[in-house]
Amino acid sequence: MNKLILWISAIFGFVFQAYAQDFYSQKDRNYWLGKAEENIPKLTESIEQPKEVVRMVEDKGAYQGWKAERAFPVQQFYQTSLKKQESFILDFGEHLTGYFTFAVTPLNRTPDAPARIKFTFGEVPSELATPFDPSRDGLSRAWLQDEIVTVTTVPDTIIIPRRLAFRYVKIELYHAPNYDFAVSDACCKAVTSASGKPEPLPETTPAIVRDIDRVGLNTLKECMQTVYEDGPKRDQRLWIGDLYLEALANTYSYRRHDLTKRCLYLLAGLADDSGYLNGTVFERPYPHPQAKQLLLDYALLYNVSVKDYLQATGDKQTAEDLWKVVKKQTEIIPLYLQENGLMNFEKANQEWWIFIDWRDGLYKEVSLQGLSIFALKQTYELAKLLGREKELDHLPKMIKKMTDAARKYFYDKKTGLFAGMNNKQISYSSQLWMALGGVTTKAESQRALKALQTSENVVHTGTPYAYHYYIQALLNCGLNNEAKEALIAYWGGMVRKGADTFWEAYDPVNDFISPYNFYPMNSYCHAWSCTPVYFIRKYPEIFQAK
Amino acid sequence: MNKLILWISAIFGFVFQAYAQDFYSQKDRNYWLGKAEENIPKLTESIEQPKEVVRMVEDKGAYQGWKAERAFPVQQFYQTSLKKQESFILDFGEHLTGYFTFAVTPLNRTPDAPARIKFTFGEVPSELATPFDPSRDGLSRAWLQDEIVTVTTVPDTIIIPRRLAFRYVKIELYHAPNYDFAVSDACCKAVTSASGKPEPLPETTPAIVRDIDRVGLNTLKECMQTVYEDGPKRDQRLWIGDLYLEALANTYSYRRHDLTKRCLYLLAGLADDSGYLNGTVFERPYPHPQAKQLLLDYALLYNVSVKDYLQATGDKQTAEDLWKVVKKQTEIIPLYLQENGLMNFEKANQEWWIFIDWRDGLYKEVSLQGLSIFALKQTYELAKLLGREKELDHLPKMIKKMTDAARKYFYDKKTGLFAGMNNKQISYSSQLWMALGGVTTKAESQRALKALQTSENVVHTGTPYAYHYYIQALLNCGLNNEAKEALIAYWGGMVRKGADTFWEAYDPVNDFISPYNFYPMNSYCHAWSCTPVYFIRKYPEIFQAK
Repeated sequence: MNKLILWISAIFGFVFQAYAQDFYSQKDRNYWLGKAEENIPKLTESIEQPKEVVRMVEDKGAYQGWKAERAFPVQQFYQTSLKKQESFILDFGEHLTGYFTFAVTPLNRTPDAPARIKFTFGEVPSELATPFDPSRDGLSRAWLQDEIVTVTTVPDTIIIPRRLAFRYVKIELYHAPNYDFAVSDACCKAVTSASGKPEPLPETTPAIVRDIDRVGLNTLKECMQTVYEDGPKRDQRLWIGDLYLEALANTYSYRRHDLTKRCLYLLAGLADDSGYLNGTVFERPYPHPQAKQLLLDYALLYNVSVKDYLQATGDKQTAEDLWKVVKKQTEIIPLYLQENGLMNFEKANQEWWIFIDWRDGLYKEVSLQGLSIFALKQTYELAKLLGREKELDHLPKMIKKMTDAARKYFYDKKTGLFAGMNNKQISYSSQLWMALGGVTTKAESQRALKALQTSENVVHTGTPYAYHYYIQALLNCGLNNEAKEALIAYWGGMVRKGADTFWEAYDPVNDFISPYNFYPMNSYCHAWSCTPVYFIRKYPEIFQAK
Repeated sequence: MNKLILWISAIFGFVFQAYAQDFYSQKDRNYWLGKAEENIPKLTESIEQPKEVVRMVEDKGAYQGWKAERAFPVQQFYQTSLKKQESFILDFGEHLTGYFTFAVTPLNRTPDAPARIKFTFGEVPSELATPFDPSRDGLSRAWLQDEIVTVTTVPDTIIIPRRLAFRYVKIELYHAPNYDFAVSDACCKAVTSASGKPEPLPETTPAIVRDIDRVGLNTLKECMQTVYEDGPKRDQRLWIGDLYLEALANTYSYRRHDLTKRCLYLLAGLADDSGYLNGTVFERPYPHPQAKQLLLDYALLYNVSVKDYLQATGDKQTAEDLWKVVKKQTEIIPLYLQENGLMNFEKANQEWWIFIDWRDGLYKEVSLQGLSIFALKQTYELAKLLGREKELDHLPKMIKKMTDAARKYFYDKKTGLFAGMNNKQISYSSQLWMALGGVTTKAESQRALKALQTSENVVHTGTPYAYHYYIQALLNCGLNNEAKEALIAYWGGMVRKGADTFWEAYDPVNDFISPYNFYPMNSYCHAWSCTPVYFIRKYPEIFQAK
């Protein structure tokens, strides 16, 4: 090839890339983004005061080895020089998301120099007691909530510009001026788009279920901002997987369906050029996706969320508006569906992020097959609700083919358990997604889910996110009592360990589990962990009876 | 004493303190503070861009051992990931006082976490190369200009809220996110209340004098804010000693007499209850003094400033308004004046801060006597300008008595030099204040000032502040050439060492001199060092001829 041809080819290549085909029209995108903007909820603000000064005490029996112990009243702190004690910890008594304000008050002579104060904000006691540095490999160290503030003029009132998520604030002198001063008038302007009080639970509800519900509601409330955030501390953004579960809980509690609507439109407006949804999007500085953050399972769950939204609200207009996005997501499956009816997991896994759960070593082949069947069935339901089932009339056959293949290739009739083709791993996720996909009969599902308790080398779930699907699977196949007990054991375990909000990762036998190599990086108020609200309120007969 | 009496006494003590007599009426204070507020100058803003990226290179020949060396263009920096190099230093090419802004721009994938950047601002190269920690005993570590900024959303444009004084900015990655990003669009919104361009110097002016004048003008401009600040980096506030010299330089350059007026009223309004002036006051959060920061020499120099202001402007109203403050300051002298005509230095030194100069070991007895005589004479001049000399008709006699005493007790006719009663130290300050006070004849002054060059164990001046008075003393007694040479050697020394603005402390043989035990704490743009502007422009025949 001569140089000229190389040049021409380079130029055309560039033009081709610059004008790459967008599956959606700009008009569609503008409309969806406009709808998303129209539905930005107004945040409710409240001013919250610290309740007391605490100290963190090492305690092997406490969650992560630390517990907060009452030290003295807040008013006393407001009158004590920061130079007189190394550090103070204020306890706001509950998890808050918002903006921290404090005053700096001189105590003796006229201040003549800046003061420098370090603040560390924590959702759980260990964050106040664990040094953040040296930082570990994993997510950005800057997520950890410590800030050094230079107060140029004393007295002054300062607002830390960063939005924070915390119950505890450690206040430390960083650089001492020559005069004495106190930090006073600490408060938090807390923000949420949750509003109103969800209906009270029936009087007969057991105390532990009430507690779980209360903590779940707080979790949801804190994550409800101008989108459904995954966690107000980290990552502070909309992910489809979190949206799906938050919307479920919202439907049975705050009923802010405008927020769900906003999120569904926003995700549509920010879908990839290919038409597939990005798994996560950002609102600031302007709405934009995490480019090419394609999560296969999340894209499919979007469809389920649209169906749930329609059923909760009857808002056909929105479902119609989003229909072409929903339909497009179903096209992911045929890309990987093989002649034999199985998804080509290895190929899909190379091209997409298949999330399923945070669990080291989890092999996701079976889960993907089950989740795909589940999502296709739900999408077909949605099509029927919209009278559009003809547009997806190939789905029933595809579902059947995939179901048959799952039974043929993954199911071990002897053990009643599912395992993958290349990896014989037995996991919770495999069994529960087969159950949720309806691959098994109720009886078979019961057998599989029960067998998990007695089999060896079972890979457990790693997060409340995956555990949600386990509870749903138990309920779907009628293991109501098991569902109730599992829910109370798992989420009740967090409550008993002092949770104000439910955690991103929870393993009853390992307080230090972290997907990020460093447990203070975990989010301790995480959207996907709020779903007891949904279970307790959707299935009153199961969860509210003594 | 029984308990009841103790109680009554405690209550009355409290009442007495709460209603302690104020020498001035509230009406006076309100009027003065009102006038001060009326005259707050509008700041001129300009947006300044960095000129290049530099690196700091060790060089024994450079000031404080470091020099800035051109590295590469700013645009290249704006396109380079902060993760690719440990740190970058931007050079703005001149000293700026204002607000630093920067943008954070992602370079590859979508940013999904906060970035944390450390900024260090320096007036001189060594501040960028000397670790600030561990901090030393001295002034508040928080004066040093380093800030850690959490950028929650990338891209974003951030303004660091603290007002800064700098030429160089070091930008370091503090906590790396997973994506690459660049800092770009760095700029400084520079502020000053100086405006207009002072008259150009005559063509015949030697280059070094031009350079000194230019650096002096920059120094003054940078310190002219909503008050005459001592230094825009540190302490950022009005001190009488700085005001006195800044106003002199202003009269011969920017002629913003409204700023002088504001400062004179502000100091009056914030005088101590005793009627004596506090040496320093603050504007924020509301005008208030450094309580009981009584500087004897500064209180007296206030009077000289009022006289200078009246002569420069003809604004009799202001001088009349402040007359009672001026008169009150003269009452300080009789408090310490002894029968023999000498000030009781030891007593005054216990009850006031007598500044004179930053110079370890300087014994200030003679200086105080000379400065007091100087100030009384100037105050009496002011009285005559206002036709109020009758109100101070005791002053001429007092001045004569003090002058005679100084000659009798301090003057050594053999050496022609002055020394104190209790300490035979020979210092520049002693000789120059005797000359400025007119205690000596011109010939005697010449002899004393010349003798400093040849005597042993002479205590030199420590700062440009004291050196100003030395130059003035040389000029007053006709040692014009010596004045010119001394000014060029001293301030020209700073220029040759690369000064963009004149430094708070300067010793030609010790680059590391610091009143605060740590030279990065020094202010490198300091008001009291700007006075070559005044000398060069007031005495054209001396400084402008080749």
